[in-house]
Amino acid sequence: MPLVRIDLISDEESEQADKRLGPLGDAVHQAMTETINVPADDRFQIHTLHRAGGLSYHPTYLDGNRDEDIVFVTITLRAGRTDDQKKALYRRITELAAERAGVEPRNVQIVLVENQSIDWSFGNGIAQMA
Amino acid sequence: MPLVRIDLISDEESEQADKRLGPLGDAVHQAMTETINVPADDRFQIHTLHRAGGLSYHPTYLDGNRDEDIVFVTITLRAGRTDDQKKALYRRITELAAERAGVEPRNVQIVLVENQSIDWSFGNGIAQMA
Amino acid sequence: MPLVRIDLISDEESEQADKRLGPLGDAVHQAMTETINVPADDRFQIHTLHRAGGLSYHPTYLDGNRDEDIVFVTITLRAGRTDDQKKALYRRITELAAERAGVEPRNVQIVLVENQSIDWSFGNGIAQMA
Repeated sequence: MPLVRIDLISDEESEQADKRLGPLGDAVHQAMTETINVPADDRFQIHTLHRAGGLSYHPTYLDGNRDEDIVFVTITLRAGRTDDQKKALYRRITELAAERAGVEPRNVQIVLVENQSIDWSFGNGIAQMA
Repeated sequence: MPLVRIDLISDEESEQADKRLGPLGDAVHQAMTETINVPADDRFQIHTLHRAGGLSYHPTYLDGNRDEDIVFVTITLRAGRTDDQKKALYRRITELAAERAGVEPRNVQIVLVENQSIDWSFGNGIAQMA
Repeated sequence: MPLVRIDLISDEESEQADKRLGPLGDAVHQAMTETINVPADDRFQIHTLHRAGGLSYHPTYLDGNRDEDIVFVTITLRAGRTDDQKKALYRRITELAAERAGVEPRNVQIVLVENQSIDWSFGNGIAQMA
């Protein structure tokens, strides 16, 4: 893994929302494979829909222009990527989110949290990366 | 950002819950601006309501006195705040949560997770803090 | 604390789901008390149910064999456990999850994120561990 959490606002039926979320998840995953060496089959994501009041954001902080289509992408991943790789990741996520899911770059917020190889178990009670 | 997640139990209509969550989110944000130098417009929060069974907590661990009004405040933020700043943050969050949202200090649980400046993108695929 | 988040897919009534989640939460907690010195009354968990589309996972990555009964266990905890303790934790979580909640080891994914003693407040605006 990285473990990716995607949080966004939706008042759609969940089936409808998933049509939007699937491509968005694909975009984030493809960007990770292209820029930070995540294997194609290392895909683990949690997609959470929120009511309008559930996400609170400042519309213009740091020259932003955010609205109710805001998306929070929180990625827990092993330490070791360089600053340049992370910058490439952000750029590529927004490009692909626009291309594949119609999410505007201005609305994509990304946060990384790092841990170590020993901090992952992919099933069967084993630390597969350690 | 910090990115703030607030999790609490509610069986209210979400509109009603948001009346309680808004002031609570305000309290957490104001406390961050007063104690750890977070800009006033650097506000990003995710508020999640849970069914009664969704939060599990020990009522008295560490001389606690917790009940169903428990609130988990999880804050992801850049490293660099001193221990004293963090202590001031905890104190101020509970003061303001009581004052502004009627949440009792005994029910406010706070967890911080730190990352680095490069780990944030506030939109447009750019690492604005790096 | 550790703070434990458990995410899984459920289309059951929440009451029914909680019958499954309670024992699963117990399993994770008991494993922590046995392997990484977590006190018995230091229990704090957030259990979130997702629709089928809400969790995305690769079924076979790293020789896995995952299906819709997949469970994500994300644990935020203070730094300081050894690699051996973490391996014992993973093993024991899966053993107990099978025994107590009928969750198969192949479906249990675990992620740890570490912070420091000063990063916790268990109520009353105090940093109890610092």
